[in-house]
Amino acid sequence: MDDEPATEILRATYRALCTHGYANLTLQDIAAESELSKASIHYHYESKDELFAAFLEYLYERHTDHFESIDGDSAPERLRSLLSLLLTEEGDAPVTEFGTAMLEVKAQAPYDDAIRARLEEFDELLFGHLRDILADGVESGAFDDRVEPVRDAELLTATITGAHTREVAIDHGPDRLYEALTEYERVHLLDEDAPEVTH
Amino acid sequence: MDDEPATEILRATYRALCTHGYANLTLQDIAAESELSKASIHYHYESKDELFAAFLEYLYERHTDHFESIDGDSAPERLRSLLSLLLTEEGDAPVTEFGTAMLEVKAQAPYDDAIRARLEEFDELLFGHLRDILADGVESGAFDDRVEPVRDAELLTATITGAHTREVAIDHGPDRLYEALTEYERVHLLDEDAPEVTH
Repeated sequence: MDDEPATEILRATYRALCTHGYANLTLQDIAAESELSKASIHYHYESKDELFAAFLEYLYERHTDHFESIDGDSAPERLRSLLSLLLTEEGDAPVTEFGTAMLEVKAQAPYDDAIRARLEEFDELLFGHLRDILADGVESGAFDDRVEPVRDAELLTATITGAHTREVAIDHGPDRLYEALTEYERVHLLDEDAPEVTH
Repeated sequence: MDDEPATEILRATYRALCTHGYANLTLQDIAAESELSKASIHYHYESKDELFAAFLEYLYERHTDHFESIDGDSAPERLRSLLSLLLTEEGDAPVTEFGTAMLEVKAQAPYDDAIRARLEEFDELLFGHLRDILADGVESGAFDDRVEPVRDAELLTATITGAHTREVAIDHGPDRLYEALTEYERVHLLDEDAPEVTH
């Protein structure tokens, strides 16, 4: 193992969540996915709650890195990259098994303040990126000036969240939504008078 | 009791779900919410699974009735009534406790084909209503002809689903989204040349 044990434990947590879901997850399941013993996991994290809090932090950092690595010379390109990241296979979108575990976590949030606080940060991260991209695009003239960054980021945040819920609940993959959103961007967001964006 | 015992049991199931959530729900909890004994609930439904299947069917019928009762002389008015029904307090939107139980059910769907099949029907019911309202509006000229009923119903279905998830997971009430969607309808869906719709 090249990694720190703590990181190895968090990666094993990811794999264990995909296999067992959140509700039934035990430290033993996580040990089984790693090269560490249950005792050495205990040495790093006293309880499942403590480990899970660290796991959500790790996940949040990865999300932040991903969002910051979004490239594109223009706001429309950056919006498309973000949507692709979140809604397509290519974009390293979370596998369905992990999405299932995360939906369990969301359903648990009303009973667990630490989880809820972390989920709020995830939501704000997404909302903030969308709002900033939309605002940049309006300022540069790439997006129509009927685009309202806060309003449209609110819509898109809900839409992306809903796509992830539907993928788990009814096995409705987000690819159809990705196409619909790409069309939505073209029809409703892009300024018709702006020069064509290169794809 | 004026109602049939079966209906009384299903109403008690609703109340018990709000109090206990889905994962930990027992027939005893449901009995405690009704005037019936656990034995007489058993007489009607052999297991929690059987009772829950009947409950989802009852809920689906109520949804269908609600959707069919949507009034409004024009497609934009009907769209606004549907959004209000699903996203505002006035609209008899499900209380948060019930939304929490339903999110647990959604997270459970990958492991339970009967639940998944029922959730698919709920999703199709919503999608179908949205698509039909949008198509009517395009045909009557109330909506802009850049509106694509299937594409935009796909977006709105995901958006509404996401609003319900965010309400549970991060306590983000859907009222801000309702305003955003009303604005979205005005800016992106309504045909600017159509006569003003009365509110």
